[in-house]
Amino acid sequence: MSGIQRLLVVGAHAADFVWRASGVIALATERGAQATVLALSYGERGESGELWKEPGQTVERVKRIRHEQGEQAAKIVGAEFRCLDLGDYPLEVGREALDQLAQVIRDLAPDVIITHTAVDPFNPDHPVTHDAVMKARLLASGAGVASAFETVKPPVIYLFEPHQPELCGFVPNAFVDITPVYEKKLEAMRAVGSQQYLQKYYAELAERRGNHARRISGNGAVRYAEAFQRVTPLVSSDLIGHG
Amino acid sequence: MSGIQRLLVVGAHAADFVWRASGVIALATERGAQATVLALSYGERGESGELWKEPGQTVERVKRIRHEQGEQAAKIVGAEFRCLDLGDYPLEVGREALDQLAQVIRDLAPDVIITHTAVDPFNPDHPVTHDAVMKARLLASGAGVASAFETVKPPVIYLFEPHQPELCGFVPNAFVDITPVYEKKLEAMRAVGSQQYLQKYYAELAERRGNHARRISGNGAVRYAEAFQRVTPLVSSDLIGHG
Amino acid sequence: MSGIQRLLVVGAHAADFVWRASGVIALATERGAQATVLALSYGERGESGELWKEPGQTVERVKRIRHEQGEQAAKIVGAEFRCLDLGDYPLEVGREALDQLAQVIRDLAPDVIITHTAVDPFNPDHPVTHDAVMKARLLASGAGVASAFETVKPPVIYLFEPHQPELCGFVPNAFVDITPVYEKKLEAMRAVGSQQYLQKYYAELAERRGNHARRISGNGAVRYAEAFQRVTPLVSSDLIGHG
Amino acid sequence: MSGIQRLLVVGAHAADFVWRASGVIALATERGAQATVLALSYGERGESGELWKEPGQTVERVKRIRHEQGEQAAKIVGAEFRCLDLGDYPLEVGREALDQLAQVIRDLAPDVIITHTAVDPFNPDHPVTHDAVMKARLLASGAGVASAFETVKPPVIYLFEPHQPELCGFVPNAFVDITPVYEKKLEAMRAVGSQQYLQKYYAELAERRGNHARRISGNGAVRYAEAFQRVTPLVSSDLIGHG
Amino acid sequence: MSGIQRLLVVGAHAADFVWRASGVIALATERGAQATVLALSYGERGESGELWKEPGQTVERVKRIRHEQGEQAAKIVGAEFRCLDLGDYPLEVGREALDQLAQVIRDLAPDVIITHTAVDPFNPDHPVTHDAVMKARLLASGAGVASAFETVKPPVIYLFEPHQPELCGFVPNAFVDITPVYEKKLEAMRAVGSQQYLQKYYAELAERRGNHARRISGNGAVRYAEAFQRVTPLVSSDLIGHG
Amino acid sequence: MSGIQRLLVVGAHAADFVWRASGVIALATERGAQATVLALSYGERGESGELWKEPGQTVERVKRIRHEQGEQAAKIVGAEFRCLDLGDYPLEVGREALDQLAQVIRDLAPDVIITHTAVDPFNPDHPVTHDAVMKARLLASGAGVASAFETVKPPVIYLFEPHQPELCGFVPNAFVDITPVYEKKLEAMRAVGSQQYLQKYYAELAERRGNHARRISGNGAVRYAEAFQRVTPLVSSDLIGHG
Repeated sequence: MSGIQRLLVVGAHAADFVWRASGVIALATERGAQATVLALSYGERGESGELWKEPGQTVERVKRIRHEQGEQAAKIVGAEFRCLDLGDYPLEVGREALDQLAQVIRDLAPDVIITHTAVDPFNPDHPVTHDAVMKARLLASGAGVASAFETVKPPVIYLFEPHQPELCGFVPNAFVDITPVYEKKLEAMRAVGSQQYLQKYYAELAERRGNHARRISGNGAVRYAEAFQRVTPLVSSDLIGHG
Repeated sequence: MSGIQRLLVVGAHAADFVWRASGVIALATERGAQATVLALSYGERGESGELWKEPGQTVERVKRIRHEQGEQAAKIVGAEFRCLDLGDYPLEVGREALDQLAQVIRDLAPDVIITHTAVDPFNPDHPVTHDAVMKARLLASGAGVASAFETVKPPVIYLFEPHQPELCGFVPNAFVDITPVYEKKLEAMRAVGSQQYLQKYYAELAERRGNHARRISGNGAVRYAEAFQRVTPLVSSDLIGHG
Repeated sequence: MSGIQRLLVVGAHAADFVWRASGVIALATERGAQATVLALSYGERGESGELWKEPGQTVERVKRIRHEQGEQAAKIVGAEFRCLDLGDYPLEVGREALDQLAQVIRDLAPDVIITHTAVDPFNPDHPVTHDAVMKARLLASGAGVASAFETVKPPVIYLFEPHQPELCGFVPNAFVDITPVYEKKLEAMRAVGSQQYLQKYYAELAERRGNHARRISGNGAVRYAEAFQRVTPLVSSDLIGHG
Repeated sequence: MSGIQRLLVVGAHAADFVWRASGVIALATERGAQATVLALSYGERGESGELWKEPGQTVERVKRIRHEQGEQAAKIVGAEFRCLDLGDYPLEVGREALDQLAQVIRDLAPDVIITHTAVDPFNPDHPVTHDAVMKARLLASGAGVASAFETVKPPVIYLFEPHQPELCGFVPNAFVDITPVYEKKLEAMRAVGSQQYLQKYYAELAERRGNHARRISGNGAVRYAEAFQRVTPLVSSDLIGHG
Repeated sequence: MSGIQRLLVVGAHAADFVWRASGVIALATERGAQATVLALSYGERGESGELWKEPGQTVERVKRIRHEQGEQAAKIVGAEFRCLDLGDYPLEVGREALDQLAQVIRDLAPDVIITHTAVDPFNPDHPVTHDAVMKARLLASGAGVASAFETVKPPVIYLFEPHQPELCGFVPNAFVDITPVYEKKLEAMRAVGSQQYLQKYYAELAERRGNHARRISGNGAVRYAEAFQRVTPLVSSDLIGHG
Repeated sequence: MSGIQRLLVVGAHAADFVWRASGVIALATERGAQATVLALSYGERGESGELWKEPGQTVERVKRIRHEQGEQAAKIVGAEFRCLDLGDYPLEVGREALDQLAQVIRDLAPDVIITHTAVDPFNPDHPVTHDAVMKARLLASGAGVASAFETVKPPVIYLFEPHQPELCGFVPNAFVDITPVYEKKLEAMRAVGSQQYLQKYYAELAERRGNHARRISGNGAVRYAEAFQRVTPLVSSDLIGHG
């Protein structure tokens, strides 16, 4: 089982990766992998309400702050941060943006891509991101037959945990033990926002998923975990128990 | 990712493991794992028609031949063969047999168990086996809380590929590259039957699943594969790409 | 497309076939097919409340009346009526009854079996009947390989429409135009009960399913239909449009 | 919308109701409803490990302690506690026990029954309880037609939240605001166990479900909630928004 | 359980609300609620064939008649009628129309929105309407966190019954007793069309759904009902039996 | 059961029909039916890699070769070949192309249309084709009520088998025995490509599906089959066993 070498995390908004995947990013980069976070938008309209409470706030300033925060949080877990700045609420991914996304995949040739679920009745931009990633991945990797364009190996897709998992059709089948990097996740969460309650919410979630992972595996050493849904099959040279 | 150490394969009938999992058994035992094949019945009524064509055939003799064949095939892939001899068509797993099965799991403490799918409109004994394994596994491993009996770590469950996968609700999410042990699988198949057509059928299936595994992973070195459906989540210390 | 030659309809209670399948039975027998109705019980407890309103009623008398009514309704649509008299609410199908059922299937060797849905949150006996039929069918037809017992060709399975279809997971995929035999269905319904409202309910259902069948096929000649869910694939020598 | 008058909660083991439904029980009884908790077993084998750590422990004593704890917790939320003492791991509900359960439903004539999910890959007794409740409910309420036995109005069924909801197919569609009775729930949890960590786990769950309920309804006053899956349709005299 | 105060019904075509939801609209307005019907198109091409049989008919005149009929039917059940006139067969909802729809939701701040199912293999415009409503609702209500725009409380979503419910994935979980307002529904149906057969079809459907509601609830007083599928969870201050 | 008279096969790329449906096309045309193959694109970018290996290759030349091959293969099985040339990877079907497609359906008035599955994680163009066909079919056939435009009878829809059926949600419910025309299928496959391995792959698939069809039907004469998923219900004048 060779480790991941290049990880790409695609979120609809600048901070999505922090709450949902900063643990596994930290694990990967600590092992030497290259990690890139790509935000399709800054979430400047739908998820930056706190910033808009400041008098005289402007959209450009909101974006700049969100960029800095995203960059800072990514840095904490060893990743590069980029944003396509496509606008949010609603996020729309037209033909040109789709080509951009496919080009990023071609350029990075990631082993693994993490993105949103296909369904999210609480967020209009998450499913749009999911569909764009799935399509761009195919455009970049082809259909497994010889084609007229350069292709990369088809990246494995993981979905990260949405806010209300059962209502998004999310069924976790991969729990990653983030105990060794938990402090980094806490630090990354602090970097993207002053909202104490979100940090508490996701800290408790990590603990809860850790409990689940312990029960599933019988491995008492797991204290904190992130849950994912793997949607592409695993091809391996042996059956895998727990890793 | 530490490898499997103890593998248990539970089939309804004596030969099920050969067609469906002898490749992964061979891979595991070559790496040093201990593998046990447990047949709940010999399949003496429903799947031994060829033997019954011999004049003067008796049920005891059919069972003995099936046992020898199962033992021989298991040996080829490095596994031990056992049979509970519960009868087939219909196979029934009562309370006592369930306790036996749970005890086997407690004794072996396998990392991984492979068994049939929950649904099979072509075979009455496969779902019975599935349900018994799932229940016995829980009786042997408990609910993750302190209990009054000895428990083992909850084994990971894989389902092996049924004859008509789409009609059994089988969705493969784990393809194992059996190219290095493919000859052993062919040999094991020859050991359990003179039916050329079944050997041809499953040889072509291994090739077809190899094609699928190549397209999924982009790994051109996979020539033969076995497909499984993992039903318990993976708990690991890192995200897994392809192994 | 050769027509059905032997049709078997298995209901939990004596009158189930009348409301749900008497139209297709009449169509088949008019074409020369042999049709058998098998009731697993008389429904003497759960579905004979009207009869129990008579003073001094006995269970034997209720069963006799239900038998006569079933026989009469079956006769109207050209079928034979039998009952295993296993008791109802709850109906239980033990090993012996299962063997009886398998033997009926072996004896009749039906092309098609119609029975209840696998799920019915309104009736405890319908799913029991479904499961028994599915299992007995496999015991009678084997797994497609040579076996130690006589087997018949695997009958095609249709499920008939439950009272509240959406809540039983019923998805109709076969609408049969019963317009030519509609009067026989009305007559059969009159034979099994004095309850006007049930006759009205199912007459309106036939009309409603006729409307659906017209919209699906564009065939304006369909006035009355019965809806079924076919659960075994169709094997044919050509693609089929509408028949 | 008239309130519930009689609530029945059926758990596989003595303490199930506490973690999962003590909030809604307290809400109902505070409003004047009658609530009964029925445990099918004491969970003396599978869920009483802490008690078995005491030297010289006996099964009778474990059951007595579990009974007292269940009774005490039920009392705190205003409910009566009963136990059928059918044994656990594995719990089996035979014909006689099924009749007992149906009789309880007939006697209490509850408006609402709460029980376990149909699927639970972490507990062998929960699905057995679910199936028994669903069947007993039908035996007690009939199929909506005149029958030979006394029937009660068909109770509404809710499922309570399992430990790992997504892996049990649990999709919550009813969130109940338990903020007003939250202290009672905490007290009831203390009554059934000394395990601090379980109390912490379920306190955090109540908070998490409160967060979800706030986002779903936009009602900022909800602080703590219990989540349920309603499986029988709602029949009402008006459309319902949030209550 | 406070009643609905503001109800919004969004149909693809001018008359959809009449067949599917005029009963619940009448119930709501009789209780004092404000109800608005929003048609995305007049259905002038796909569902006005009768009007086009008149010689010299024009599209403008068809729309005017459909507007008057919609307005008249809405008035009968106490609702306001509006139409966005986006065209039908195919209906398309571009960015501007989506913003209009979101603005309507912001302006009305409905407690409940009723619209079409997500799937309808018989109508190209129904799923388009569904998707537009779901997206506009999120744009109007936000993701539950502070945002840069005004938000309303997230309205509850109900889907109305499609013509062939099982083939549209429709599973009714809310039956509303429209017996008290049934005459108004009949009158509203007469207002939108001279087609006797459609009025008969939906009158029989109301009766059929009334039968279902009686069986589900055991409430014998329900004579006519409309069926809906609620897709957003219920948040309430108590468990709900039947209302 | 009258045979199909007009068959339309719509593929995303020029050669899709050959691998997946050339058998049933040959069966239909041998019986006198008219068959049309419509390719939405030539697959010049994503599925013509072999052609691009020639030095100096141009897109126009690739398209011309693909057209000739498609025409040649179609001719072998008795069908006409057309291509809309909409471009591939990604294929996009805008409003104008949708109208073209609807017009083709109106002009041909096919009894049956065969196209791709709704889901295909290995190909971006297949689901686009599926959705366009489903929508165009409704625009051409209306909703079953009188409309302002000409309509045709709603064609029956079959989906053809994707490369990895289980991962595309493909559940075959119609197996067609192509034994009598198997040689034509082989010849058509040779016409569209020099890739030996694809021809071998699909020849083995036909054999495998033949094995399945034999087991399902008990009809030992089936040697080669093509598998399809019928998504529109069957309306017929009798129940159908195996044809």
